[in-house]
Amino acid sequence: MELETKIKLPTTNYKGTRDFFPNDMKLRNWMFSTMREVVTRYGYLEYDGPILESLELYKAKSGEEIEKQLYSFVDKGGRQVAIRPEMTPTLARMVASKLRELPRPIRWFSIPNLWRYENPGYGRLREHWQLNVDLFGVNHWTAELEIIRLACDILFAFGANNKDFRVNFSHREILNNFLQKTLKLEPEKEYAVAKLLDKKNKISKEEFESQILDLLPNSKQDLEVLYKFLSSNLENILEIPNINIKVVEEVKEFYKAIEKLGLKDTVFFDPSIIRGFDYYTGFIFEIFDTDPKNKRSLYGGGRYDNLIGLFSNEQVSGIGFGLGDVTLQNFLSLHNLLPSFQSQAGIYLGVLGEKVFFSGMELAGNLRKEGILCETNLDLNVKLSKLIPQVEKKGYRYMLLFGEEELDSSSIILKDLKENIQKKLPLVEIISEVKRLKF
Amino acid sequence: MELETKIKLPTTNYKGTRDFFPNDMKLRNWMFSTMREVVTRYGYLEYDGPILESLELYKAKSGEEIEKQLYSFVDKGGRQVAIRPEMTPTLARMVASKLRELPRPIRWFSIPNLWRYENPGYGRLREHWQLNVDLFGVNHWTAELEIIRLACDILFAFGANNKDFRVNFSHREILNNFLQKTLKLEPEKEYAVAKLLDKKNKISKEEFESQILDLLPNSKQDLEVLYKFLSSNLENILEIPNINIKVVEEVKEFYKAIEKLGLKDTVFFDPSIIRGFDYYTGFIFEIFDTDPKNKRSLYGGGRYDNLIGLFSNEQVSGIGFGLGDVTLQNFLSLHNLLPSFQSQAGIYLGVLGEKVFFSGMELAGNLRKEGILCETNLDLNVKLSKLIPQVEKKGYRYMLLFGEEELDSSSIILKDLKENIQKKLPLVEIISEVKRLKF
Repeated sequence: MELETKIKLPTTNYKGTRDFFPNDMKLRNWMFSTMREVVTRYGYLEYDGPILESLELYKAKSGEEIEKQLYSFVDKGGRQVAIRPEMTPTLARMVASKLRELPRPIRWFSIPNLWRYENPGYGRLREHWQLNVDLFGVNHWTAELEIIRLACDILFAFGANNKDFRVNFSHREILNNFLQKTLKLEPEKEYAVAKLLDKKNKISKEEFESQILDLLPNSKQDLEVLYKFLSSNLENILEIPNINIKVVEEVKEFYKAIEKLGLKDTVFFDPSIIRGFDYYTGFIFEIFDTDPKNKRSLYGGGRYDNLIGLFSNEQVSGIGFGLGDVTLQNFLSLHNLLPSFQSQAGIYLGVLGEKVFFSGMELAGNLRKEGILCETNLDLNVKLSKLIPQVEKKGYRYMLLFGEEELDSSSIILKDLKENIQKKLPLVEIISEVKRLKF
Repeated sequence: MELETKIKLPTTNYKGTRDFFPNDMKLRNWMFSTMREVVTRYGYLEYDGPILESLELYKAKSGEEIEKQLYSFVDKGGRQVAIRPEMTPTLARMVASKLRELPRPIRWFSIPNLWRYENPGYGRLREHWQLNVDLFGVNHWTAELEIIRLACDILFAFGANNKDFRVNFSHREILNNFLQKTLKLEPEKEYAVAKLLDKKNKISKEEFESQILDLLPNSKQDLEVLYKFLSSNLENILEIPNINIKVVEEVKEFYKAIEKLGLKDTVFFDPSIIRGFDYYTGFIFEIFDTDPKNKRSLYGGGRYDNLIGLFSNEQVSGIGFGLGDVTLQNFLSLHNLLPSFQSQAGIYLGVLGEKVFFSGMELAGNLRKEGILCETNLDLNVKLSKLIPQVEKKGYRYMLLFGEEELDSSSIILKDLKENIQKKLPLVEIISEVKRLKF
């Protein structure tokens, strides 16, 4: 070990990642446990898989292209592996491996950390965490209803109200009908138009039009139909030629259910949303912050039918969504929904002097046995005037003082650092007294 | 996407890793939350860092050798990085970066996943999780006392008793005295002897003796002193020539404290433990299963003085330990301390028929608002005879049945699937009734 080296290592973390210091970690734990609580209440079960998978798995789902964004490498045994950029391939692999045993419908969730090689920016990091919620085995819009209701309930649980965000949804077949039958686009052009529609709100109107006109067979005329399509609602979408009436009827039935569950001010039909063109096959949805300062999509999901088929001859339809911790935190921060995590939910026991050390340690043990957080000083000759600022800095409001005088009289001092008041209590009363405190 | 390909992908996970299916995940969450609870009660704060760090960081701590066991690679920007094999370098980096701001002593913990490239075997995998507990800034055996007490409390919290495991401890300086002053070994031989002592219990007595005799200057005579050293206790360790009396006095004082805290049947002085020869500088300890079927060390730790010095000119002494999830699970399993995680702690609401669907969804929402786990069927025309086996397979004991008859009479049926009994209840009583159930 070269510990005596003069050149010191940098204390910076790897680009695009975060160090979670205790207050950051309290925030992360709070976010994860709130998500976990909501999803668990719907009967979803948590799973996890390894952070390394075979490279092949990601290529099979997303094509060769994906490799550009992957942390992929060859392991010491010559295997091509990648750090997971998303959870869905692992999920599909795991579900496929136990397809016959698992009771249906399969309701699963996970909060994995994921890696993408990209240039870090607002809401975009190289390492992030993402809640993944998936439901397999229900071929009916009741599944969509549950998933979207759940997606809303998560934001409600964080304190958001139904005007703070909106869920825009559509159905992939409506878009497919429009591109293939209304506009009569060839497959490559269809793909290019879909990609362009996906980034429509991120570019200027001029830029969008100049690019789209190159792709449309009857430029001007098609553009007019396109604008009409994009601004359609459920009442007039069938005015667009060649849209499948059965799909629209299904979507309408779904929307009636949304209204009955009281979500009509939050959930809206929007044929302009695209979302994962290759991947989704049915309903798609995307959740947006209504605050104009945060125009990015918060999260989204939809129905995918072909994923299990990568591993198995059996087809099982799935629907799910992914909610990233970075975008969620930005949303909560913008809407002033982040609590403060400065305070410690427990008590600091000041053990004042060598003679009371063992009695102090015993007392600390008794408090902990009752489930009370009790931190103590380990410097036996500490001065109270030095100890108190440390205890305050650690975020404690209450402190116990236990010295020789207290030991001799079987008593203890309870100090409120915020109000700067203290009282002497009989030692036997201390546990019940501490349990009454609000931290 | 090549979804229609005939060749299906394998559903196996990467070698040396685990898929955590829901029951495995419940077990993992239970282990982690039990650990978290105990450590938090001592006032330790959770932190985390990125799973990728610069390769340099690990080399600086452990030398070039470490690379053989690392998942290291060059990222797309040309940086040499590694997936973390241990948490300590990240911990030291983070502590060093805020050394002046952090209130002392620094009590931190984390439960990271860690990767090592090795041949998987019993208790040894490529990906595992490890509780890391560390305390910085106390240069006194009171820190050792807290850390060892905490290490024991974790196993007690899992239901182990004080005979199920033992903590063997020593002090690095006693071993150093013995190798350098008693045996008068040169540095390379000192290192070789320490390494051999570390694996003494894993090889035969003959093998050990044949190898050790090659390393000792006065073979037979030294071997006799060595055996005497290894079997010494705190009463007779000073009979070995050249052992520093001051260190032994410190160890004795520490052990008196262990006795006073009621841990003398669990914690023992043992000069034969070696543990991380390069790394630790003071007290060291190792926790063993007392069951002869599981001879491997469960976990261990000790005091290290030089780690922060990799980043900063300031020296801060630290003490800590790491407890791996695989070894812990093996220990709990051997001692029959693993609970069953088959049952679901909630209720399944059977919504029977299209007409009651919305009322059913509303009821499910009301139950969830009260914090009750409530899963429902999404197939509106499900037959009860098909639904019940699914619900049982999912681990529910209690089920609510809600059909047209119930809707019309504002009632609901509560069914106990285990006892096969059911009763009809007024709908308004259902929440308080479900809250009384024991899952």
